Amino acid sequence: MTQTPAQAIDIPTYTTQLAERARAASHKLAVTDGERRAALLLRMADLLVERTPQIIAANQRDIDRAPEFNLTSAMIDRLRLDQSRVEKMALSVRQIAQQKDPVGQIIEGFVRPNGLRIEKTRVPLGVVLFIYESRPNVTSDAAALCINSGNALILRGGKEAFFSNTAIASVIRDTLDEQGFDSAAIQLVETTDRAAVTSLLKQDQYIDVVIPRGGESLIRAVVEQSNIPVIKHYTGNCHVYVDQHAVDLPESMAVDVCVNSKVQRTGVCNAAETFLFHRQATDILRETCRQLASFDVEIRACPTTTQLLSGVLPADKLIPATDEDWATEFLDLIVAIKVVDSIDDAIDHINQYGSRHTDAILTADILAADQFIARVDSADVMVNCSTRFSDGGEYGLGAEIGISTDKLHARGPMGAIDLTTYKWVVRGHGQIRE
Amino acid sequence: MTQTPAQAIDIPTYTTQLAERARAASHKLAVTDGERRAALLLRMADLLVERTPQIIAANQRDIDRAPEFNLTSAMIDRLRLDQSRVEKMALSVRQIAQQKDPVGQIIEGFVRPNGLRIEKTRVPLGVVLFIYESRPNVTSDAAALCINSGNALILRGGKEAFFSNTAIASVIRDTLDEQGFDSAAIQLVETTDRAAVTSLLKQDQYIDVVIPRGGESLIRAVVEQSNIPVIKHYTGNCHVYVDQHAVDLPESMAVDVCVNSKVQRTGVCNAAETFLFHRQATDILRETCRQLASFDVEIRACPTTTQLLSGVLPADKLIPATDEDWATEFLDLIVAIKVVDSIDDAIDHINQYGSRHTDAILTADILAADQFIARVDSADVMVNCSTRFSDGGEYGLGAEIGISTDKLHARGPMGAIDLTTYKWVVRGHGQIRE
Repeated sequence: MTQTPAQAIDIPTYTTQLAERARAASHKLAVTDGERRAALLLRMADLLVERTPQIIAANQRDIDRAPEFNLTSAMIDRLRLDQSRVEKMALSVRQIAQQKDPVGQIIEGFVRPNGLRIEKTRVPLGVVLFIYESRPNVTSDAAALCINSGNALILRGGKEAFFSNTAIASVIRDTLDEQGFDSAAIQLVETTDRAAVTSLLKQDQYIDVVIPRGGESLIRAVVEQSNIPVIKHYTGNCHVYVDQHAVDLPESMAVDVCVNSKVQRTGVCNAAETFLFHRQATDILRETCRQLASFDVEIRACPTTTQLLSGVLPADKLIPATDEDWATEFLDLIVAIKVVDSIDDAIDHINQYGSRHTDAILTADILAADQFIARVDSADVMVNCSTRFSDGGEYGLGAEIGISTDKLHARGPMGAIDLTTYKWVVRGHGQIRE
Repeated sequence: MTQTPAQAIDIPTYTTQLAERARAASHKLAVTDGERRAALLLRMADLLVERTPQIIAANQRDIDRAPEFNLTSAMIDRLRLDQSRVEKMALSVRQIAQQKDPVGQIIEGFVRPNGLRIEKTRVPLGVVLFIYESRPNVTSDAAALCINSGNALILRGGKEAFFSNTAIASVIRDTLDEQGFDSAAIQLVETTDRAAVTSLLKQDQYIDVVIPRGGESLIRAVVEQSNIPVIKHYTGNCHVYVDQHAVDLPESMAVDVCVNSKVQRTGVCNAAETFLFHRQATDILRETCRQLASFDVEIRACPTTTQLLSGVLPADKLIPATDEDWATEFLDLIVAIKVVDSIDDAIDHINQYGSRHTDAILTADILAADQFIARVDSADVMVNCSTRFSDGGEYGLGAEIGISTDKLHARGPMGAIDLTTYKWVVRGHGQIRE
């Protein structure tokens, strides 16, 4: 079917059958012992490695078509698969297989005065629709996380990775067949027709949650169209606030954390985009900017910062900040810098311009740290460490399906456990209500 | 402002200011100690009682207008407030004040190998938009639950209770003022113009969650229009399955639970609407129907049931079931009854026609109970007790904001704790990523 041109498919029929089959498969998967699901994943990892040549060949077809989609060289590099990258995919699947099974955990349990025994038990969400524009390895990661958490999965990858994703999905399907699972447990949408997504987003009788990962425009479009609950993964406009008491931190700690938050990796959502310096921490500001300059970082500066840095930085690296800069996720060697008069100004700035993703404070003052933790309205609040630690792997969640900027259900890095919900189980001996 | 006719209000300006003020108030409320929030609620309860005459007078205005809205006598009775009902409202607020403060609870905490100390800490959701078509006491309950959980609240009640809700909201506002809180923490939408709701449902930059309570059409309309995450409270098409091994239960237990699930209160979402009897439990079916007949319950019967009951019931109480009956929440003295060949048929029927609210099994067989618990895809699964126990009060959650039929965030009865999310707090000593 992969070879079938999209227009040959009747979209409403195709997507409805896809969703119905996923729902049926989810009911079976939800009652499968964790042992069997783990074995399935280990076998899937082996088969990914065995099929490396076919996967790389399919990937080459995507690489060849890349110019049609005007992919940048960076995007092409993210798209490209080679033997070591396929091995990394398999390794990630094995790691997820070794994770604790979240299904069936008793979250809480108690006995009521009338003798009813009540348990809040963790169960899979059911059917997950995952819409992504990412590297092909996300396909196997998402499948593994859903198997680990007992969910059926519908995968809708980007058209630029269509053949790669199809090859990986066929490995997954063959493993499901071989191991006696319903292969509808993990299905790839086998058309790049956008109408298929629009149609799937209305199937709220079969699909329990939509997780879109990609640009903000993609996510907004999904939210607009969907009747199904969406867990959003918006941008990370992350801040580092250098408090007046940062000067009391050990030598260079504040500078090192600022630089690491900005330059250790720039194209990721947990990299810092804005630094806020208390006006009594301007020595740290200057030293940070000197080091940033050595990494060719461009600085969008508030007027005070511009004064402080005149002579310190080459003019072409020092640009006056616009109001838009405070709200921008640069994902590049660019940082916006503002000098503030107080921690209150810093917190207000973060709550106004931030994206509630990850924000850090550098301070030696415990009360300042507590105030920042309590009042910054973000998923992840860091004290005296790099924003780059806001990550499922770094939190020990294993692979992550994404980093939620929502407040409902899951917030921040999402692991397999965040793909579960709960069921109230009530056991009695004939109790009735009077 | 209450007296201002709706058309005098500029809706977009009004709703945006309302939402902005709620957001600002939520930031302050979130960092208020629980002690102060509890004291606020106790004072609010006292003031509700003090203002009983004004509340009853306002309620009378709604009662007088009831004919305009074609309210049934049952609806008018639910709308009516008297001294004892106002005292009950105050009592409920006091009970919520005595509940444990969910804000600040550490859900989990651990130290990473690199020394980062990570805590998953419970925090308020922020701003809740509550849209309801219920009794006026829901206004004070919702306000108390949001204060207890540190959330700001925007209340949009039904037009039929407009004056009652306005009087109750003014008590809440005066208490907030008197106790030094920002009165924007709890705001009632002071116009019945539907455009106000449409506008509020787009304010996702200020409002964190929408909780609609009312008819399915209201909830569907909210889901269609909202850019804000919605926690849905759809209907309860609840089932009781009487297993073949129910005959081994103590004398009359199965019959008593079936009858209680149907008739103890009929107009509520956790009342049973369909009974499924294993074909080897037909004696229980007959006795249950004899008792239901004495409560004037109408039976929508499958062909087998019709045969079994011929002669047992008056013809006008025994009507052949249509396919639509299996999917209907009657909320009345009506029950659909089907005889099934196996527990599998019962579970498949529930997963096909049910609303994932509450479903019960009656059996003496532990394996049958376990299978039912594992495979019925509902928020609440009961074994050998009445479906009527699916309730926040019965679960010991205190007052409930509703019973979620969603799978995300909260499932089944929702208490104050379900109006919270969490924040990841990460404390380090200069860690950077290599």
